[in-house]
Amino acid sequence: MVEACGAAPQGLDAFFAPRGIAVVGASAEPGGPGHQIVAQLQQTHYAGGVYPVNPRATEVRGLPCYPTVLQVPGSVDLAVVVVPAPACLVVAAQLASRRQQRGDAAAAVVVSGGFAETGPAGRDLQDQLARTLRAAGIRLVGPNCLGVADAHTGLTTSFDLGPYPAGGASLLSQSGAFVMSFLQWARPLEMVGLCKLASVGNMADVSLTELLAYLAEDRCTRVVGIYLEGVQDARGFVQTAARVARRKPVVVLKPGRTEAGGRAAQSHTGTVASPDAIYDGAFRQAGVVRARTVSEFYGVVRAFERLPLPRGGRVAVLSAVGGPGTVCVDEVASEPRLQLARFSPRTSQQLRAVLSELATVGQPDGYVDMTGALVARTHGDALRVLLEDDGVDAVILLTPPPAFLDEQEVAQSVLEAYREQPPDRAKPVLVVLTFGDAAMAARKTLEKGGLCTFEFPEEAVRVLARMVEYAQARHRFQR
Amino acid sequence: MVEACGAAPQGLDAFFAPRGIAVVGASAEPGGPGHQIVAQLQQTHYAGGVYPVNPRATEVRGLPCYPTVLQVPGSVDLAVVVVPAPACLVVAAQLASRRQQRGDAAAAVVVSGGFAETGPAGRDLQDQLARTLRAAGIRLVGPNCLGVADAHTGLTTSFDLGPYPAGGASLLSQSGAFVMSFLQWARPLEMVGLCKLASVGNMADVSLTELLAYLAEDRCTRVVGIYLEGVQDARGFVQTAARVARRKPVVVLKPGRTEAGGRAAQSHTGTVASPDAIYDGAFRQAGVVRARTVSEFYGVVRAFERLPLPRGGRVAVLSAVGGPGTVCVDEVASEPRLQLARFSPRTSQQLRAVLSELATVGQPDGYVDMTGALVARTHGDALRVLLEDDGVDAVILLTPPPAFLDEQEVAQSVLEAYREQPPDRAKPVLVVLTFGDAAMAARKTLEKGGLCTFEFPEEAVRVLARMVEYAQARHRFQR
Repeated sequence: MVEACGAAPQGLDAFFAPRGIAVVGASAEPGGPGHQIVAQLQQTHYAGGVYPVNPRATEVRGLPCYPTVLQVPGSVDLAVVVVPAPACLVVAAQLASRRQQRGDAAAAVVVSGGFAETGPAGRDLQDQLARTLRAAGIRLVGPNCLGVADAHTGLTTSFDLGPYPAGGASLLSQSGAFVMSFLQWARPLEMVGLCKLASVGNMADVSLTELLAYLAEDRCTRVVGIYLEGVQDARGFVQTAARVARRKPVVVLKPGRTEAGGRAAQSHTGTVASPDAIYDGAFRQAGVVRARTVSEFYGVVRAFERLPLPRGGRVAVLSAVGGPGTVCVDEVASEPRLQLARFSPRTSQQLRAVLSELATVGQPDGYVDMTGALVARTHGDALRVLLEDDGVDAVILLTPPPAFLDEQEVAQSVLEAYREQPPDRAKPVLVVLTFGDAAMAARKTLEKGGLCTFEFPEEAVRVLARMVEYAQARHRFQR
Repeated sequence: MVEACGAAPQGLDAFFAPRGIAVVGASAEPGGPGHQIVAQLQQTHYAGGVYPVNPRATEVRGLPCYPTVLQVPGSVDLAVVVVPAPACLVVAAQLASRRQQRGDAAAAVVVSGGFAETGPAGRDLQDQLARTLRAAGIRLVGPNCLGVADAHTGLTTSFDLGPYPAGGASLLSQSGAFVMSFLQWARPLEMVGLCKLASVGNMADVSLTELLAYLAEDRCTRVVGIYLEGVQDARGFVQTAARVARRKPVVVLKPGRTEAGGRAAQSHTGTVASPDAIYDGAFRQAGVVRARTVSEFYGVVRAFERLPLPRGGRVAVLSAVGGPGTVCVDEVASEPRLQLARFSPRTSQQLRAVLSELATVGQPDGYVDMTGALVARTHGDALRVLLEDDGVDAVILLTPPPAFLDEQEVAQSVLEAYREQPPDRAKPVLVVLTFGDAAMAARKTLEKGGLCTFEFPEEAVRVLARMVEYAQARHRFQR
């Protein structure tokens, strides 16, 4: 919990563990972003002080409102600024005064747009803003961003995130829409637990690199996902990413593989993109996982958040649906990082014992078609056998939402087998339920139980391949 | 509507337009597949006769039940058989008698498994079954399948399809799970309209090739989607597919690209897969679209079902979300079949007139970042300008479920601009809403209005690339 009193937080902690937050530009009427940010902080039960600031209001959502940050009585470590761009300079000067007088106000998130992304005049404004704050010793995230959040404490400077399942995935993004998209997408099935979030916007001061280094030390962050368009100091970013990747997975989605994509990135955040090949080779060497598509980024981040790392690329495919199972085998065999597992004679024998006579085992090796002749418990029984085989590093399980089986019983059976694994030798299990919303309830149970579910076999295969890629890089570092 | 009396249907029409259906093996108690099939036919308001057959029941779901097919009084063109494999031979003999005595009973769907897919003994059983029916002039779909359906008439021999939105997509599949998965996946947002469906199972008689030729003549089929594992006569299949592709799109998902995938396919349906390269080259020459993944198959089939064909590969990307828009530009530029459009000076000028000053137009050419500074109507206004530019063949539109805009107003604005197009020169519009269920309502409105929506930019880009591939093949044929 964040305390409203106590010592001032140091460095970037002022963004992520402030004693109090001033929301500068919070209107009394619903609708505006400032009002919304106050509402969000109330909904997420943020425990620190929340201080609306607006000379034209005396109260916002039941909280006293102050004419400027200078009048806020409590400790304000972080100011969120949503006033129009030119007025931000006035606010910056007030923050500087406050910092000089009170010693707090160490951090500002400027949400407002209208700066470098709009052209030369905006860039001048941004430079002035950054100068004023820097001279006062105030760090700046933004402008033109959604700012920061921490799902564990309810901290948020975004106007539409809402309470979010807390977990181990921290996200850094040069696109507010991108990161919100991921979180909204994952929300209904609670497919990812969020730790810290920073939408960095124009990066006039605090950079992706600095935030990434900060997250390396953050104990609740298990994986860092980054949407990257371009940074000034590409070399420094990659070096930091390499350092972090030795401790926890770093997943990057970086458009700009093509010249056109590079130009779009440039017009979006005003950052100069370095040639893509520089990043690509450096990431590979650094053990940074580069997701190739949006869907792969979502999948890889959430897999690292909750699944154990595979020890190698030997995959067993366990299917109750012949067609999708066949597609899955094809995809596994096409991925250079993966191979179908070779079942031990004991495994084949045990599988035959728990499966129907109609089932086919090991055609090809590593593949089990349970067929539709099964009960809910069969899923867990077969999975248990596979997880106990030392020649299997990971299992992809495909099952329909069974027309004749209880969906929740199937999910429970799978979860039990997964959880019986000894924690130090646990293997990842990726569950594919290709039936869209018809499989919603089973997917939710599995996700809540700590497994990762997917709609398409190809998705699960690609995610697993990226996990193996990272595991292999880790082995390399440890030698 | 199907009439319970009138002339006997000819050829495969006995499967798709029977005057009456006998469900052999329908139990009085809910739960079994036969009972379920009767329930489905009632739920879908199938207008033909429905005759449960079971010596141990007198009534099933309010319908009189007959001891064998020989006692059914009305015309029975199609028998659906769900009794255990050995008993199927008895039913086959009864069907043969009936056909001789009454002249109907021209078609049978054998749903039951336990035939060639289980080994030599099952194969013998299957051969006997096929021989008996063939000798009597009865065509057979299956065994080991879900059989046939027609969403326009409510015909179904499946036990878990339910009433389905009717439309122009016909599906042929060597995996029941695969085709059910697609239909269930698409159902909540009504992302595809179904015409005819055949899950062919072991293909002891009626083959994929014959069904495909039948669908070529079917006026309500606008696109044929096929899940193919392997056929005996690969050459004949490809030749037929090539003929059909000249008239309507044929989309194939065929695993077996790898040796392991080929073996999995073989163990699944017992079909011998021809070397994959034969198919691959032949499909390309034939103008048959080969989907590379499950998700691509789903997307391409539904795009062909409802969108006009693009004339070429010149794409405009219209985005309200900078990050996903940038990813989309990258994906378009990476697809050999697609190019970013070159805006005419008039288009650029008109775009600037309808967009905010913050928007960027043509950086790179073909790309518009509307930014968040927009109202609902802006979407339609900008789309209209792009659709009127002769240098634009298709538009990919990316928008968030807007925090400050009315989702339905955005959808309506897009739909209006799309529908104003002259029908003979209409261009496809693919809408990307990356926010998962948060965008459900807008997606539903757009899909109902005849547009295709996607969760990920890469999905839309790949689907469009396959559409262009087909359009180019059509041009080639017409020269």
